[in-house]
Amino acid sequence: MRTIDLNCDMGEGFGAWSIGDDAAMLDIATTANIACGFHAGDPVVMRRTIGLARERGVAIGAHPSFADLPGFGRRRITGERPEDLETQIIYQILSLGALARLDGHPLTHVKLHGALSNMAAEDAALAETCVRAVRAADPGLIFVALPYSESWTAAERAGLTLACEVFADRTYAPDGRLMPRSAPGSVIHDAAQSCEHVLEMVVNRRIPTVGGAPLEVEPDTICVHGDTPGAVTMARLLRRALEAEGVSLAPFARR
Amino acid sequence: MRTIDLNCDMGEGFGAWSIGDDAAMLDIATTANIACGFHAGDPVVMRRTIGLARERGVAIGAHPSFADLPGFGRRRITGERPEDLETQIIYQILSLGALARLDGHPLTHVKLHGALSNMAAEDAALAETCVRAVRAADPGLIFVALPYSESWTAAERAGLTLACEVFADRTYAPDGRLMPRSAPGSVIHDAAQSCEHVLEMVVNRRIPTVGGAPLEVEPDTICVHGDTPGAVTMARLLRRALEAEGVSLAPFARR
Amino acid sequence: MRTIDLNCDMGEGFGAWSIGDDAAMLDIATTANIACGFHAGDPVVMRRTIGLARERGVAIGAHPSFADLPGFGRRRITGERPEDLETQIIYQILSLGALARLDGHPLTHVKLHGALSNMAAEDAALAETCVRAVRAADPGLIFVALPYSESWTAAERAGLTLACEVFADRTYAPDGRLMPRSAPGSVIHDAAQSCEHVLEMVVNRRIPTVGGAPLEVEPDTICVHGDTPGAVTMARLLRRALEAEGVSLAPFARR
Amino acid sequence: MRTIDLNCDMGEGFGAWSIGDDAAMLDIATTANIACGFHAGDPVVMRRTIGLARERGVAIGAHPSFADLPGFGRRRITGERPEDLETQIIYQILSLGALARLDGHPLTHVKLHGALSNMAAEDAALAETCVRAVRAADPGLIFVALPYSESWTAAERAGLTLACEVFADRTYAPDGRLMPRSAPGSVIHDAAQSCEHVLEMVVNRRIPTVGGAPLEVEPDTICVHGDTPGAVTMARLLRRALEAEGVSLAPFARR
Repeated sequence: MRTIDLNCDMGEGFGAWSIGDDAAMLDIATTANIACGFHAGDPVVMRRTIGLARERGVAIGAHPSFADLPGFGRRRITGERPEDLETQIIYQILSLGALARLDGHPLTHVKLHGALSNMAAEDAALAETCVRAVRAADPGLIFVALPYSESWTAAERAGLTLACEVFADRTYAPDGRLMPRSAPGSVIHDAAQSCEHVLEMVVNRRIPTVGGAPLEVEPDTICVHGDTPGAVTMARLLRRALEAEGVSLAPFARR
Repeated sequence: MRTIDLNCDMGEGFGAWSIGDDAAMLDIATTANIACGFHAGDPVVMRRTIGLARERGVAIGAHPSFADLPGFGRRRITGERPEDLETQIIYQILSLGALARLDGHPLTHVKLHGALSNMAAEDAALAETCVRAVRAADPGLIFVALPYSESWTAAERAGLTLACEVFADRTYAPDGRLMPRSAPGSVIHDAAQSCEHVLEMVVNRRIPTVGGAPLEVEPDTICVHGDTPGAVTMARLLRRALEAEGVSLAPFARR
Repeated sequence: MRTIDLNCDMGEGFGAWSIGDDAAMLDIATTANIACGFHAGDPVVMRRTIGLARERGVAIGAHPSFADLPGFGRRRITGERPEDLETQIIYQILSLGALARLDGHPLTHVKLHGALSNMAAEDAALAETCVRAVRAADPGLIFVALPYSESWTAAERAGLTLACEVFADRTYAPDGRLMPRSAPGSVIHDAAQSCEHVLEMVVNRRIPTVGGAPLEVEPDTICVHGDTPGAVTMARLLRRALEAEGVSLAPFARR
Repeated sequence: MRTIDLNCDMGEGFGAWSIGDDAAMLDIATTANIACGFHAGDPVVMRRTIGLARERGVAIGAHPSFADLPGFGRRRITGERPEDLETQIIYQILSLGALARLDGHPLTHVKLHGALSNMAAEDAALAETCVRAVRAADPGLIFVALPYSESWTAAERAGLTLACEVFADRTYAPDGRLMPRSAPGSVIHDAAQSCEHVLEMVVNRRIPTVGGAPLEVEPDTICVHGDTPGAVTMARLLRRALEAEGVSLAPFARR
């Protein structure tokens, strides 16, 4: 029987602010990527999110970002010295990891956030910096990456354990990259279409591409979102569609 | 005919984060206190809020705070040099004021935020620092204050125009101060009770006090909240109750 | 007789931190570019710097940046919406400008900081966003730009008054751009060589280029630095060398 | 033979900013208290400071603070929920501790910073919150505290190992507290007087008090400063004076 993971970004509040319905998503997702204070998150939010995930048996990982609170880590940043960026990523993983261990729910993985993730998917040198940081922080952590990306290649070369991630709501170019958001139809808003898209990838192990041949894929985890009410509903429908097809849900880290 | 103002804190987002339903409250409140970037707010949020208020004809003012983004301006802070705090408050008023003038909707007033407001109500020296800042920034701005507070006294002595504020959801001590939140019953959660409380103050010009005689009051504005769904509903009910009693709603600054 | 301005970045502290010897540079420079809180500077630092410049008769302007305190505005940032960046720049100019007017020493100009400046020199769309911000904030402000840059072109097209800036310690490519810092010899460390370089540009109105023909230039201002002890000494020597050649020093804004 | 430690706050830069001459002080002090990002410090600064201390054989500890970058942790802050403050302190200790372990130079102790330290010395409840945080983070860490303080009492009761700290440049009240900075003569500026003051405490084990009897003391460490050029000189003289008296210098954590 097929098994798959649903991963979701969580703990993206800061002080009095919050984003997304973490409580709702913790009933749907099997893995949570927790913000580490660089694009969102503070020690109190981190610890609360660790605790909620532990209670529900949801696996957790670090979700490091560029140092960019005002831009929520979505701004593309260059000009950081590689060794400084490496230290920043190490710090984020180790800090969250220390809190997680203290509260009895150790990290299983790392997934890069926002602009750092997008840039590392395309830029081999940046990907290597990120991978070096993960290895330095804890080589036992699983690295979540898109297949057909520079991040994947760098992590594989470095000997990290990889989890292959696919998107429920994004279409793919013939080379396996995500279609840019600016391209019409690149974001899938329809729940039924999204479910079909995911089942094709999970059950048939093929990524449909826009104007190209399908690509082989062995997905470990599906990225879902909870930062809008509609997103939560869509994630719930997706979970049910997977279960209806006999796909079981479990954290990739426990397989 | 009685006229009263409903004031509400707005623009309390930051980057990707938001708090409260500003759009809903702009249909209920007649005056908005806009965060100035020290406890919440950034230039983009400030400008958007100014624009929304201008479209609805809602008067706007500055809502300055201690420099305290991580604590949302709710932490009590001492040890700031008075002249530095004065400059920080001036800066907040002038910065928001310059954006507001640029967009054709000048500020009418200043209302202190959070811990700064609470502390200035009790501490004459701090109240004087705040009042000095308002006068330095623009002596034509109306200063919103609780009656029976050190802020009121300081503003009056300095010759500022004052707007007298009462709370729809808080009870009062015999000396006219707010009952501490820790005291049972100090926060009014019931909408009907809150409406009655407000009408007593607005129509009969009396503040009921807990265990004491009622105090005279000439309220100019009622503080309402919009940071929870229930708060919006309560504010809407209050507005209707006032209108049903023949009280008209208008910004205090236009009277 | 030739007249030239020496401009220097100042007010680049934050809270307890400071950078550069502002007091020393205020005796050498004739124009100060003051940080506006986005890469450095806070209201107290801004106001102190305005006051010091006013006392010495040094002209002041705004030195806006990307929102990037952790990176001191030196990180290249993309992905900001142009209208948001425009608002951020407007805010910086208006905020500093309001403090400056309050203290009786109004702004004369705007000079972009760090990565924002470098990127706008090369990117026409970004240059237009910056120029639009200056015009919206105050079309009477002088825009300081490198000749042969996209910033210069955008400001000229928008009808802003321009001040032409040259660097005392940087060499130029044949197209008039600065040689990249990574190129050997691109930064002039020798004081005598720097003086000669400046005199060639100021007196003979020619920019020497590396491996190309000299370019015509009508410099209004020379950028000097004060953030290291050596830099202060170099700036002082430069000022004396100019005076020895009969070049008088005065803010470009008073010519 | 007497042995004593000299401790100094270090790593108090942030991004492009720095404070104090860490390199000079690392040749004088035997223990460094490293800022953890809440009043100063960022991951790059922390790691660099850890590395410098390791190279010189200087013991290191965490120097946690209120979340207060704009105030350098010197502002007194109340209204933080105790459990949130506890988490913030735990986070600071664990984050720095994880970096330190990664780089092979584990933490030996915790010393509270600035306003948090001053307030915990006087406020038993706050002292207990801080001590609880240290125990939760790592009960093997030594807690540095002033004798005759609430922090000392709370740490002793909780079973933490304590290091007794005295100040080279401050006078004491008859109850063992520091004389307030506002009192005339409370800060010792004269190097000779400071050395004499320290020798009395270290060699004779007595704290002289202003207008009272001397108090018994068993000092483990002397707090020295390096944030001004004069401070470095004073610290160097103090070290020599101690060595001249036959007192040997070593980290308290190695005794």
